[in-house]
Amino acid sequence: MSKPVLAPASGTRDFLPADMQRRLDAFAIVRRCFEAHGFLPFDTPCFERVETLTGKYGDEGEKLIFKILKRGEALERAEPGELADMALRYDLTVPTMRAVAANRHKLPKVFKRHQIAPVWRADRPGKGRFREFYQCDVDVVGAPAGLADIEVLSAMTAAIAGLGFAGYEIRLNSRKILKGMMIAYGVPEALHGGAVVALDKLDKIGIEKLPEELASQGLAPEQAEPLVRDLGAPDFAAVLRQKLSAEPTGSAGLAEVDQILSALTGTIEGGSIRFDPTLARGLDYYTGAIFEFVTPAYGGSIAGGGRYDGLTEMFGGQSEPVCGGSLGIERILMLTEAATADPLGPTAYVTVWDPAARDRALALVRAVRAAGVSAELDLLGGKLGNQMKLAAERRCRTVLIQGPDDVAAGVVQVKDLASGTQTSVPLADVPAHLAGLP
Amino acid sequence: MSKPVLAPASGTRDFLPADMQRRLDAFAIVRRCFEAHGFLPFDTPCFERVETLTGKYGDEGEKLIFKILKRGEALERAEPGELADMALRYDLTVPTMRAVAANRHKLPKVFKRHQIAPVWRADRPGKGRFREFYQCDVDVVGAPAGLADIEVLSAMTAAIAGLGFAGYEIRLNSRKILKGMMIAYGVPEALHGGAVVALDKLDKIGIEKLPEELASQGLAPEQAEPLVRDLGAPDFAAVLRQKLSAEPTGSAGLAEVDQILSALTGTIEGGSIRFDPTLARGLDYYTGAIFEFVTPAYGGSIAGGGRYDGLTEMFGGQSEPVCGGSLGIERILMLTEAATADPLGPTAYVTVWDPAARDRALALVRAVRAAGVSAELDLLGGKLGNQMKLAAERRCRTVLIQGPDDVAAGVVQVKDLASGTQTSVPLADVPAHLAGLP
Repeated sequence: MSKPVLAPASGTRDFLPADMQRRLDAFAIVRRCFEAHGFLPFDTPCFERVETLTGKYGDEGEKLIFKILKRGEALERAEPGELADMALRYDLTVPTMRAVAANRHKLPKVFKRHQIAPVWRADRPGKGRFREFYQCDVDVVGAPAGLADIEVLSAMTAAIAGLGFAGYEIRLNSRKILKGMMIAYGVPEALHGGAVVALDKLDKIGIEKLPEELASQGLAPEQAEPLVRDLGAPDFAAVLRQKLSAEPTGSAGLAEVDQILSALTGTIEGGSIRFDPTLARGLDYYTGAIFEFVTPAYGGSIAGGGRYDGLTEMFGGQSEPVCGGSLGIERILMLTEAATADPLGPTAYVTVWDPAARDRALALVRAVRAAGVSAELDLLGGKLGNQMKLAAERRCRTVLIQGPDDVAAGVVQVKDLASGTQTSVPLADVPAHLAGLP
Repeated sequence: MSKPVLAPASGTRDFLPADMQRRLDAFAIVRRCFEAHGFLPFDTPCFERVETLTGKYGDEGEKLIFKILKRGEALERAEPGELADMALRYDLTVPTMRAVAANRHKLPKVFKRHQIAPVWRADRPGKGRFREFYQCDVDVVGAPAGLADIEVLSAMTAAIAGLGFAGYEIRLNSRKILKGMMIAYGVPEALHGGAVVALDKLDKIGIEKLPEELASQGLAPEQAEPLVRDLGAPDFAAVLRQKLSAEPTGSAGLAEVDQILSALTGTIEGGSIRFDPTLARGLDYYTGAIFEFVTPAYGGSIAGGGRYDGLTEMFGGQSEPVCGGSLGIERILMLTEAATADPLGPTAYVTVWDPAARDRALALVRAVRAAGVSAELDLLGGKLGNQMKLAAERRCRTVLIQGPDDVAAGVVQVKDLASGTQTSVPLADVPAHLAGLP
């Protein structure tokens, strides 16, 4: 038999205690921030019917969906293109919209949900890019543009601050502004989508290569020229504001963006917010404000989201205003300080003097835990020195020793591992002594 | 377009806020109990290489593994029997043993891990039986029989008590006792496995049908007769103890079981423990003590586990003693009181008097949250009565109102939704007032 492969599957990770502790702590912080903002916990299954996910993420996204093989007779009967009946969720948004459509009557009128859960993408693994990773989402269903968008951003910025991350900028735009921009610069409607895709690449390719990119999207040089010229101006945002003043869709988008800017500018702990009329974001379904959190420390966004009114219609639900955002928690964990040591162990490590002392040790560990104090029991029963080493390896705070003299005197030796001091404590007082440690 | 199916995939569930809150609370209780017993958090990916899982669960189990379709060219090249490269985890034990083998040098000598995570089985869905469900596992790697088994059972019983469940019995046996029993009753070694399988069905089929069951496993009537006769005795356990006194494997098993009984009898909150020499448990890999938690309230076990020394060898690791157990948390949640209402909402619901008052409302909600008080902001801006209704629907504790007179007087009306009383609080004192509510 060949030696089995012990590494986890490509793009996935095992989490040993130090890392797992850090992740659980981070998830708890994010959850607390989201709930302080009134978002309720919510979850959907890890897999969905294939048809629930197809047609939602564009061709590139769709290729990355992990599909689950049919089983038994269904597999034997299956045509080559229909081997799978279910698929792992690719994001939290689409399954949530399905579940909201299914349960709308059971949910509050304004439904604010949060979800901290894994998603799967068959992407090429790389630094900070995994095939299994967690997302932390908030969404508001049933509230129009304005305060709802501000609340989504407030919850996300609070969570990032809670995680101890600082030094990011929120790029804010609106799909309505992009639409108005296309109209104002005379781009033919059929080319709006392509022009926006080109624009979205501006910060990667630079203004020099933009005409080429716009041409590849089908814009003639004279159609691209006015936009490219103004984009090269020192303050394009101001130029655009002027230009949109007479264009209704763009003006509406500007008013929404300005409301968000006015509410959040100067209030974000560790971050800032800026209007960026070139931000487009990839997904088709956005309809209003869109945003991306970027940081110089990472060549990509650490969070993003926007308004996608009407997405619930895809599932036959009523058309409803929705906006939401997603924290890239894996990236934020990567950018904040890494775990270095195993988590602190229990308060007490109860040693076992010899095999005859097992019941005594069991009674002590039980009494300590009954007082709400975490405790570890030695399971190997070796020499006291070896037991002390195991206690140190587990990073316990104290070691409890019951030698024959201690038993005769009715006491327990409580040794503090950090200071090395040893205190003789009457047996019955040990739980209270440990519970009272500062 | 046909109307999309809105229900989650067969055997899976959406969790709306009330249920999700209850699940998260339950997981937190279990985690706290496990960690108070010195078990460390740990996780593995949701999917593994197919070969990591195959050959571990028996033929019946293997059919229930969800496999993930290969992608792109790998799928085009794949033979019909090799369409999948990965599979969703079927339990937490096997992936953990792989991860332990891969990381043994980074883990403590005695490694106690807990894991609260979903697993997937393509089982026929039924009451309390799902295709996606959580397990809550504890395992001790690297400690021999005795205290380690007791610690596993202590952590599990503490978690069940923490969840508020009572009225169960732990059936305890040992694979060594079963082995000794087969030897003592003269069952030929080749038939040991089959005889144990038959024995495991005893409490379902009754003593009358046991001879038939043993015959179907290949035992001749004269081979089955002595065992069947003694099993019908009023106290088979006592008869067996006598019978095993001269048989080394069985005696060793009895000594281990007696140590566990002696440590736990009378100490289990809400439960009891009993030696049951007919308990066998399905999986092949057990080597020592085995146990199952049964309750009259449910026709099946709510937890189980045992010792499986050497399982890490399957992954090329060193042979190590291991024992562990798994809580059937879904069943325990089903058997304990169901959630009836949405979780309590935030402490404060900040109303918005009119559109011109938005900034004032935003400033107030921000100040309240900054004081560590959870707060909801009205997002619809309707009549005050409607905002009050939304606050009640969200189960908020107080509603904050800033009418024109209040603004002029520099106060906020704080209305307690339960009592209906309204207090006029100076604006600057509102966060402290809310934080100080009993």
